[in-house]
Amino acid sequence: MTIYEKVCKTFYNNPSLSKILVVVAVSGGAGGGLLAYSDSKSYQAENDVFPQLEVVNKKKKVVVLGTGWAGTSFLKNLKNPSYDVHVISPRNYFAFTPLLPSVTCGTVEARSICEPIRKLVNKKDLSVSYWEAECLSIDPERKKVTCRSTQNADLNGKAEFSVDYDYLVIAMGARSNTFNTPGVEENAHFLKEVEDAQKIRQSIIDCFEKAALPTLSEEEKKRILHFVVVGGGPTGVEFAAELHDFVNEDLVKLYPKAKEFVKITLLEATDHILNMFDKRITAFAEDKFHRDGINLQTGSMVVKVTDKDISTKALKNGGVISSMPYGMLVWSTGIGTRPVIMNFMKQIGQTNRRALGTDEWLRVEGTGEIYALGDCATIIQRKVLEDIADIFKKADKDNSGTLTVKEMQDVVDDILERYPQIELYLKNRHMKSITDLMTDAKGDAKKEAVELNIEELRAAFSQVDSQMKNLPATAQVAAQQGTYLADCFNRMEECEKNPEGPIRIRGEGRHRFKPFRYKHFGQFAPLGGEQAAAQLPGDWVSIGHSTQWLWYSVYASKQVSWRTRALVVGDWSRRFIFGRDSSRI
Amino acid sequence: MTIYEKVCKTFYNNPSLSKILVVVAVSGGAGGGLLAYSDSKSYQAENDVFPQLEVVNKKKKVVVLGTGWAGTSFLKNLKNPSYDVHVISPRNYFAFTPLLPSVTCGTVEARSICEPIRKLVNKKDLSVSYWEAECLSIDPERKKVTCRSTQNADLNGKAEFSVDYDYLVIAMGARSNTFNTPGVEENAHFLKEVEDAQKIRQSIIDCFEKAALPTLSEEEKKRILHFVVVGGGPTGVEFAAELHDFVNEDLVKLYPKAKEFVKITLLEATDHILNMFDKRITAFAEDKFHRDGINLQTGSMVVKVTDKDISTKALKNGGVISSMPYGMLVWSTGIGTRPVIMNFMKQIGQTNRRALGTDEWLRVEGTGEIYALGDCATIIQRKVLEDIADIFKKADKDNSGTLTVKEMQDVVDDILERYPQIELYLKNRHMKSITDLMTDAKGDAKKEAVELNIEELRAAFSQVDSQMKNLPATAQVAAQQGTYLADCFNRMEECEKNPEGPIRIRGEGRHRFKPFRYKHFGQFAPLGGEQAAAQLPGDWVSIGHSTQWLWYSVYASKQVSWRTRALVVGDWSRRFIFGRDSSRI
Repeated sequence: MTIYEKVCKTFYNNPSLSKILVVVAVSGGAGGGLLAYSDSKSYQAENDVFPQLEVVNKKKKVVVLGTGWAGTSFLKNLKNPSYDVHVISPRNYFAFTPLLPSVTCGTVEARSICEPIRKLVNKKDLSVSYWEAECLSIDPERKKVTCRSTQNADLNGKAEFSVDYDYLVIAMGARSNTFNTPGVEENAHFLKEVEDAQKIRQSIIDCFEKAALPTLSEEEKKRILHFVVVGGGPTGVEFAAELHDFVNEDLVKLYPKAKEFVKITLLEATDHILNMFDKRITAFAEDKFHRDGINLQTGSMVVKVTDKDISTKALKNGGVISSMPYGMLVWSTGIGTRPVIMNFMKQIGQTNRRALGTDEWLRVEGTGEIYALGDCATIIQRKVLEDIADIFKKADKDNSGTLTVKEMQDVVDDILERYPQIELYLKNRHMKSITDLMTDAKGDAKKEAVELNIEELRAAFSQVDSQMKNLPATAQVAAQQGTYLADCFNRMEECEKNPEGPIRIRGEGRHRFKPFRYKHFGQFAPLGGEQAAAQLPGDWVSIGHSTQWLWYSVYASKQVSWRTRALVVGDWSRRFIFGRDSSRI
Repeated sequence: MTIYEKVCKTFYNNPSLSKILVVVAVSGGAGGGLLAYSDSKSYQAENDVFPQLEVVNKKKKVVVLGTGWAGTSFLKNLKNPSYDVHVISPRNYFAFTPLLPSVTCGTVEARSICEPIRKLVNKKDLSVSYWEAECLSIDPERKKVTCRSTQNADLNGKAEFSVDYDYLVIAMGARSNTFNTPGVEENAHFLKEVEDAQKIRQSIIDCFEKAALPTLSEEEKKRILHFVVVGGGPTGVEFAAELHDFVNEDLVKLYPKAKEFVKITLLEATDHILNMFDKRITAFAEDKFHRDGINLQTGSMVVKVTDKDISTKALKNGGVISSMPYGMLVWSTGIGTRPVIMNFMKQIGQTNRRALGTDEWLRVEGTGEIYALGDCATIIQRKVLEDIADIFKKADKDNSGTLTVKEMQDVVDDILERYPQIELYLKNRHMKSITDLMTDAKGDAKKEAVELNIEELRAAFSQVDSQMKNLPATAQVAAQQGTYLADCFNRMEECEKNPEGPIRIRGEGRHRFKPFRYKHFGQFAPLGGEQAAAQLPGDWVSIGHSTQWLWYSVYASKQVSWRTRALVVGDWSRRFIFGRDSSRI
């Protein structure tokens, strides 16, 4: 069985595997406001014009900030009509961000990956309204968000407005991280929003037109046609590969003289590109880039950027600083926190974090009814060792001071659910169950007779927390979180009565919901020249032309609407037949 | 036979009728420079990077300014490899401008109507280079044009560069004419360039999003959703119709509450819209707009525009000035002269004209080898009465002082070719030939015996010049002029030896070429709701749904490339299936 057949088989056996996504950047935008209407039924699905304000507390008001992967996935899956939902975001559309690198070179058109959020939330039963505005601040005390229209809208002199909420869902995504490198903000292109991709597309053509002008020296031409990508992650790599294809398949035909001057450089601070992938993928990608003539510089960190030069520092060899002239720079090194999130974190006492910390149910720590998901949030998984005393107390029903295997087995499901790191640890140690861990701690004692006191339990669990990992900032995570949270909201009342979560270790009763659990379906890395790499769960790796076709089918299937699906597939076909367009619009 | 069958029959019998175009606005851009290369063969088709400058006068250097209808049509039809062609324009693509109104509402995507000029001129035999720059000035004395890159390109400190030419082809189009109405430049949208259409599309969505924000009063919403179109020509009418369809077919579904606030107003200074069309078309269009609820205000001239109000003056009823609040304004009242053309006209002594005056061979009057075509030029047809003495002298071969019918018949073809107004006059008077005009002048004399002296000839021709008309500023005219001029350039040497034009009335020998003659293939006016009107030659008028399908087929067939054809047809299909997109990108 070839690797391709394997992959296909997995794909067909497990329909949910169509959730495999290479995920670049999830973004969002702004906050949402809540006002209940005296006659909310007659305003159902009228998400545009604001009726008389008369606040009646019939429905719980949910304000969703952001229309990226997390926010949209939440909105798409929310079905319970007992909420009034208000969406606030500066972007009135959802963008399929994993295809942004394709938009930069015109393989796919910008509009083909966008779907108006109003269309996505236009449901019969649910009252959802959308406001095109940016969230400026969140006030958890007064349960209010302050927003500002993204246009120069004079709202009768009031540029800002504030919106109440009962539940707040923060899904504003992140911004690009420049690591405060001087000159990056001013001179680099980023690749987070649709507008970024459109600007990059124009800039590429600009460089080629600029270099074609008369009276330019060869040196100037070389500089202008030097494209630099910073960041060897999937986005940077895919962009470099797309650009290489665009230049070699389309642009050289129209700018034949430019060929000898074009150079693409990929800068990566660590030793290898795609280092979150399997080594085989990294090796293949590096080798392919080498053959393609893409100048790969690993171990080199950008320290300064001016309008014409990039200064880099070699991380080995004594940190030599060198400089290279460039024409265009795309910066794709990771994500940073949006200022409004940063301020909110200060307010609620979360400092020194890269994102809003939430519990395992996506609730922001230190607040009441505020949820955060997607790139702006990070789940703070409780450590087993921190809770070990409570765990012991909970499990030791007879208060004997020792824990038998029988006692442990009564709570084991709850504990495994509450602390997923235990399961990961057992798997890595090739253990079957938590009992093995207990017997292991007691040496050669008989399984049924094992009894541990609290210190022995602590010792048995001493290593499990090392398995804790932050979730990656991907669309896949954000989308799953959105779906999870919508499901919680859909069954809020039901689960209030019949809680289905694990037992509360440090309290009484059970948690209402099961905690969020991420399921990784794998990740793609398109490498250009109709080749791609994919890393699937279980360390399956697939590389080559067939993987590109798998990529096509997965990405087509994951589109949010039939319209975007048809457009994206149409764009791919158009590219095969006519190539990419180089009109400077 | 229905009118539709008639139209179709005409269409099939006369393949060139596929040239029917509703033509909105032809534009262009800038000037082109000429430098011959020491080794021009090796640089063939290398239109991008500039080789060493070593001027050798092997090939004649043709500089083409502009890549609109006129320039592109010239370039597409130029086949003679004995020219070095340099194209200078700020737009590196040709845009199918008649579809711009469709782009404003997303019926057709911007990129679907654009084709890179480098692709269009990429020919095997011909050396064509393109520079993305704007022409700043033309120096006919030194045969030079000065250009500036449209980007912030630092050409080694030289922001501008100049280019020599042997022949200069000016096809820079025109700009929108505001008639110096205060506030229009600052507050109105125009509809000449692709970027204009894109901006209009964004602005429409902006208005709907703005009106959906909370805390706005009903009055404010009404103002923001009041769309005003100034100018009842084909472009203004088509845009108003497109907007009406966009709002009623797509936007009301997503902004249901907006419906009661939206208003579209079309302002026209004269008494009727579409007044260059047959009255039946005007009546139908006005009636349809009335039924559609488009507010049609004829006889009302805009006198002032602020950011929120438009002041109009009624041209009847004592010139009452009134004011209306608006949210978005599209200005489409006709064309004006570009500043660079204005300056050039001053230089060569052409003042008080709306465009560059050329002779019937498209050569700019008062210059050597400069040609002008499209919207930036106007042909100054010589009057028969001005030349009557020379005509008489030329025809009176025996110098008898009188002109016989026989003598006239010897030169009649040349005269008809040189003065097309005579044929129009004869047709209008239902005369068969010029001889009828002569016999008419002599009353009841016998046809063969008619002899006229110069005064009698003058009297006979006294009315013919009344038939002279300026050509309309349409894509149809520009495209035909481009083809004509390319044909002249292709056969320049050949026709130098064997001139094929009419005899020179005021000189010796013959003109090299036949003068340019415009052939009108008719004009469309799309009216929205899948209906269109068409006025075809011979006063044929077709209105309705079938005409819209004729419009589709003609516009699809007239696309400059298979790529744009496929994209435009794809866009139309996409609109039928999925509607128009309202993402704000």
